[in-house]
Amino acid sequence: MSHNTFGNLLKFTTWGESHGEAIGCIVDGFPSNIKIDLNYIQNKLNLRKPGQSKFTTQRKEDDEIKILSGVFEGKSTGAPISFIIFNKDQRSKDYGDIKNKFRPGHADYTYWSKYKNYDYRGGGRSSARETAMRVAAGALSEILIKNTEYKKIKIDSAVIQIGSEKVDSLKWDTKLINQNPFFAPNKKIIPIWEKAILDHRKKGSSLGAIIEVRVSNMPVNIGEPIYQKLDSELSKAIMSINAVKGIEFGAGFNIVEQDGLTSSDPMQINKKKINFLSNNSGGILGGISSGQDIVFRYVVKPTSSVLSLKQTISKDKKNTTISTKGRHDPCVGIRAVPVGIAMTAFVLADLIMINHSKKI
Amino acid sequence: MSHNTFGNLLKFTTWGESHGEAIGCIVDGFPSNIKIDLNYIQNKLNLRKPGQSKFTTQRKEDDEIKILSGVFEGKSTGAPISFIIFNKDQRSKDYGDIKNKFRPGHADYTYWSKYKNYDYRGGGRSSARETAMRVAAGALSEILIKNTEYKKIKIDSAVIQIGSEKVDSLKWDTKLINQNPFFAPNKKIIPIWEKAILDHRKKGSSLGAIIEVRVSNMPVNIGEPIYQKLDSELSKAIMSINAVKGIEFGAGFNIVEQDGLTSSDPMQINKKKINFLSNNSGGILGGISSGQDIVFRYVVKPTSSVLSLKQTISKDKKNTTISTKGRHDPCVGIRAVPVGIAMTAFVLADLIMINHSKKI
Amino acid sequence: MSHNTFGNLLKFTTWGESHGEAIGCIVDGFPSNIKIDLNYIQNKLNLRKPGQSKFTTQRKEDDEIKILSGVFEGKSTGAPISFIIFNKDQRSKDYGDIKNKFRPGHADYTYWSKYKNYDYRGGGRSSARETAMRVAAGALSEILIKNTEYKKIKIDSAVIQIGSEKVDSLKWDTKLINQNPFFAPNKKIIPIWEKAILDHRKKGSSLGAIIEVRVSNMPVNIGEPIYQKLDSELSKAIMSINAVKGIEFGAGFNIVEQDGLTSSDPMQINKKKINFLSNNSGGILGGISSGQDIVFRYVVKPTSSVLSLKQTISKDKKNTTISTKGRHDPCVGIRAVPVGIAMTAFVLADLIMINHSKKI
Amino acid sequence: MSHNTFGNLLKFTTWGESHGEAIGCIVDGFPSNIKIDLNYIQNKLNLRKPGQSKFTTQRKEDDEIKILSGVFEGKSTGAPISFIIFNKDQRSKDYGDIKNKFRPGHADYTYWSKYKNYDYRGGGRSSARETAMRVAAGALSEILIKNTEYKKIKIDSAVIQIGSEKVDSLKWDTKLINQNPFFAPNKKIIPIWEKAILDHRKKGSSLGAIIEVRVSNMPVNIGEPIYQKLDSELSKAIMSINAVKGIEFGAGFNIVEQDGLTSSDPMQINKKKINFLSNNSGGILGGISSGQDIVFRYVVKPTSSVLSLKQTISKDKKNTTISTKGRHDPCVGIRAVPVGIAMTAFVLADLIMINHSKKI
Repeated sequence: MSHNTFGNLLKFTTWGESHGEAIGCIVDGFPSNIKIDLNYIQNKLNLRKPGQSKFTTQRKEDDEIKILSGVFEGKSTGAPISFIIFNKDQRSKDYGDIKNKFRPGHADYTYWSKYKNYDYRGGGRSSARETAMRVAAGALSEILIKNTEYKKIKIDSAVIQIGSEKVDSLKWDTKLINQNPFFAPNKKIIPIWEKAILDHRKKGSSLGAIIEVRVSNMPVNIGEPIYQKLDSELSKAIMSINAVKGIEFGAGFNIVEQDGLTSSDPMQINKKKINFLSNNSGGILGGISSGQDIVFRYVVKPTSSVLSLKQTISKDKKNTTISTKGRHDPCVGIRAVPVGIAMTAFVLADLIMINHSKKI
Repeated sequence: MSHNTFGNLLKFTTWGESHGEAIGCIVDGFPSNIKIDLNYIQNKLNLRKPGQSKFTTQRKEDDEIKILSGVFEGKSTGAPISFIIFNKDQRSKDYGDIKNKFRPGHADYTYWSKYKNYDYRGGGRSSARETAMRVAAGALSEILIKNTEYKKIKIDSAVIQIGSEKVDSLKWDTKLINQNPFFAPNKKIIPIWEKAILDHRKKGSSLGAIIEVRVSNMPVNIGEPIYQKLDSELSKAIMSINAVKGIEFGAGFNIVEQDGLTSSDPMQINKKKINFLSNNSGGILGGISSGQDIVFRYVVKPTSSVLSLKQTISKDKKNTTISTKGRHDPCVGIRAVPVGIAMTAFVLADLIMINHSKKI
Repeated sequence: MSHNTFGNLLKFTTWGESHGEAIGCIVDGFPSNIKIDLNYIQNKLNLRKPGQSKFTTQRKEDDEIKILSGVFEGKSTGAPISFIIFNKDQRSKDYGDIKNKFRPGHADYTYWSKYKNYDYRGGGRSSARETAMRVAAGALSEILIKNTEYKKIKIDSAVIQIGSEKVDSLKWDTKLINQNPFFAPNKKIIPIWEKAILDHRKKGSSLGAIIEVRVSNMPVNIGEPIYQKLDSELSKAIMSINAVKGIEFGAGFNIVEQDGLTSSDPMQINKKKINFLSNNSGGILGGISSGQDIVFRYVVKPTSSVLSLKQTISKDKKNTTISTKGRHDPCVGIRAVPVGIAMTAFVLADLIMINHSKKI
Repeated sequence: MSHNTFGNLLKFTTWGESHGEAIGCIVDGFPSNIKIDLNYIQNKLNLRKPGQSKFTTQRKEDDEIKILSGVFEGKSTGAPISFIIFNKDQRSKDYGDIKNKFRPGHADYTYWSKYKNYDYRGGGRSSARETAMRVAAGALSEILIKNTEYKKIKIDSAVIQIGSEKVDSLKWDTKLINQNPFFAPNKKIIPIWEKAILDHRKKGSSLGAIIEVRVSNMPVNIGEPIYQKLDSELSKAIMSINAVKGIEFGAGFNIVEQDGLTSSDPMQINKKKINFLSNNSGGILGGISSGQDIVFRYVVKPTSSVLSLKQTISKDKKNTTISTKGRHDPCVGIRAVPVGIAMTAFVLADLIMINHSKKI
């Protein structure tokens, strides 16, 4: 039973609403005596923070994170680590209209139907604000991985498509990714995306995105068959992120166009090392990492909150329209990038611990 | 910690290897006093059974299922229900070569690396044979759903693409689906797929498939945010099926080509009923069913076992080749259809019970 | 995997150290739309609060509880409920000596050994201060029970023995229990316990206690065999409370002196109602409540922190002595009473929800 | 959610009814590549087997155990290990009377009330026959422990009281324990217990027992605070055994008669090793093993099935009497000894794996 908890041996539980007093997260199962660098965590949060460029929402969230327990004299104690961020810039007047109307594409209608009572302000619990806490938990799990024998694991992620504009090279300039407002992996695409986003913002519309994650220096053996496969756990993790509509590994949906002669990755011994000659599998065989790079992609739908009028209904079941006037991301997929990295890191840390527990 | 168990309130645990003495499954958490029709379960298994047409493997598996506990005088007792199928047609000589070589695209290498000792015969634990037990558990959960207020829920699933040949209509002839060897939803595609598969078999190759699942008469309110969302749980379930490389809901990856004006589904009151004017969301908002049809697709890679020679390595780390001579499916995606239905039914039954537990 | 989480469908996770900035608790799985009376919860906390009489520690803990999420407009939303208490009266100088020495009977040595790094101030994570959060979670689960068909369930608990002085009657004056500093169920014992405790405090010593819990108006059917039996879950819950060394149900350890003719409780129909003629079982048969009162007892060891010198060792493995000068309870068992009630209420609420989920 | 599953990282799930076709157990999470000696497991089962002496039931159960999966070429594969025992000597005519009447002290009434449909033959699912499977799972976990650095852990258990007759020495002759029909730890008590049991059998009655468990060569650090404490997990485990009414650790309930000067165990350095000068704690401090012997006791009520007539009611709610004519243990506590050892071993193996997973 997980509800608001993710993970197995390593677990995090998030709480808090977008316009409540605070949001927070408890990480449990974290080993003791590991140095915790709060700046590292804060920097990860800053990557997700809105208001950083004109291509994301102008809403200001300080996202200043605090640790309330589980760390003593700079190191983890093995006790639960409690993170908190107090909400500051709430401007709840922006959201007045949604008290009585359901925003299409949002969870307003289903929360109202399921819970009868819900905090509708800014999406409340269903707001993407919750993902700030995933970033904190993910940063912590990266610190954990860096303290294991698998310290070389490296997780890169970039936006590879916005609207219909795709990145046209498989080569990534990984240093560039965090230095442009789109998490783009190459320079050429940047002006194209700038134009597309500004055009859509002008129209009162928004755009979707496809994000790719690449994990390099992966060890073999991570993942637990049959119902804790690495790809299965990553899918659960990524699909729980707001607005994600699909995920694919390796060759993904395109593998249907291949045949059995080419789709499985041949193996070769080269200088006593095991190599694969292709990576259609995305680095996972039978749910267990093969030592190749883990590669997967997920799609984030266009921001549902747009300025233009949309047809909808009210809580008292009348036909009406709604225009969401708040400060919204023109392409919410961009800010999903650090969240996807965080969830990936968390899944890996958890499965690494599980794998380790068997080598007794 | 799930390992070989799937589910929360309702759970199933599978055990057994492809060429072991038997395979089995324990379903726990099943309510008492529900009539259990073993024929219904056996019929579901027969849909998955190999050797039914020339388009699936010619291996014979009787798949005759028995219940060893949890049912008394024809009705469930609330105690764990234990299913067993004894393996008969094992012909292990077919598999001799894989004792020492890794089949590309299979889990041989990762199981060998992770477990040191594994049953390599016919894939052992990583064989798709395990999915027979998911079908049994899924059939049981369908029986459960039929005993709730949600008895009208209907799960249809069809193959919509094999290789590069797609079904060209969104309309399904649902009666046809179980009456053709491809689980095709319309007649026109059948001869096209026949030819494609026979061509590939002749070449010693195989094909991939895309499968769509549609759940109609869905109630609203099923799914638990934030980490037990309906789409997140379904993704975990489907991605745990052998050879699945991706999943998408509603408009799926194509939603990236839409914009925020069209991607969110408008709502309307019509004769006092709530309607959505499109279904890009695939019937799920914020992780909770909206009452629309649940729609998702997943891709199954081409069968990795093919007659043609493939480059690989041996356990003693030498370069070699392998040709898998066994009786294999030319398109393993076809037989995934009943497995996908089973996993969908199980996820729904489990989340229905969880939702019910809160209405106290 | 539970670590710092208790419960199944309904769960709570506690965090925080005795002398950290705050302690807190997340309750997850709580149904929506239930009125939450914070005063009710605060009053329960006040019963556990130290410094209330000369028979408990003089340490002042305001224990003023706040809710940070999950409640909107006075009612639960179905989202996680986050409780927090900021620590005020920490006076950490009281605890200086324990930085380098292990207090016998405390968790100092095992935490040091297991975690290498731990917050030793006031016991840190292993302090009974953590139980304040159990009381909050328990109060919430009482509110939940009151909103079900089982609203008449009543949990009473009293101290029935301090040191070697036992209450000599089975009849309880339940109104008296919360009106005396010992949670004594009858008046006669009060002056006896007063004297015993003051005597021991003077000697720099402390006393143990036995506590009984009685749950009346219990419905039948609560508890899930085989590994979620009502008595098994209650034992896990109660034995997790600091300083508890044993638990027994119904006739308990004394049942060994009975024989099979008398130990099982005869049943009788009386005016169409089912009666039991005795309650040796403590209200539980086969792990399921029988409708009789649930009756169990648990023992709390004497407070390990005493003024008198005790032999111990230091972290650098030298023989030494320690006298714990802080403000300690002369009989910590007294303040366990509200904690035991809270854990009982939580177990019942959780198992009630599980039982309800099957009646689909 | 555990229902019929016990454990966390290492788990077992039991299924089957006393008079069904078979009973079984799946052990999941067991590490791979460990030699599995089926004789070792069978020998453990033989210790629990009925019909071995005139002091246990004369019912014959062959209890011949088989492994159906998870072991390949004599070693574990990391896949689920499936145990099965086919039921042979069922003689269901013995149990005819209980179809319509509730046996006092048994789970008949609560199962009937909760499940509406249950297998009443021989207790069905609530029968102690289920514990055979715990013994198998426990034996497997002993094999696991023997393959870790903690291989010296030794679990002894003996009956220390039957009826009112107690063993009068704390010294145990551990070799004797398995060589007498009572699991008595010293010779002197044997004729006394023989007489007591034969006397009670003659009267158509039965007796209760107290059992002690001692775990020696325990490492420090096993157990996870706050809600997975070693004592809490052991209590949950032991209290789930049929007919157990209480459990206590170390000084147990008698600690209430001690005071704070003596109840906590002083520590001392002796030849550079850490010693405790007493063991009132039972080897556990703050839920974590301290390196001392784990010591606990539990009480098993007298067999509820006796020849003498007892007052009860029928399913159609009439007053009646019942005499249980089957072949029953005159003191069911005796056969609980191997079950208690098995549950102890399982808890230790699981917590050892959890502890190990953190040392990453």
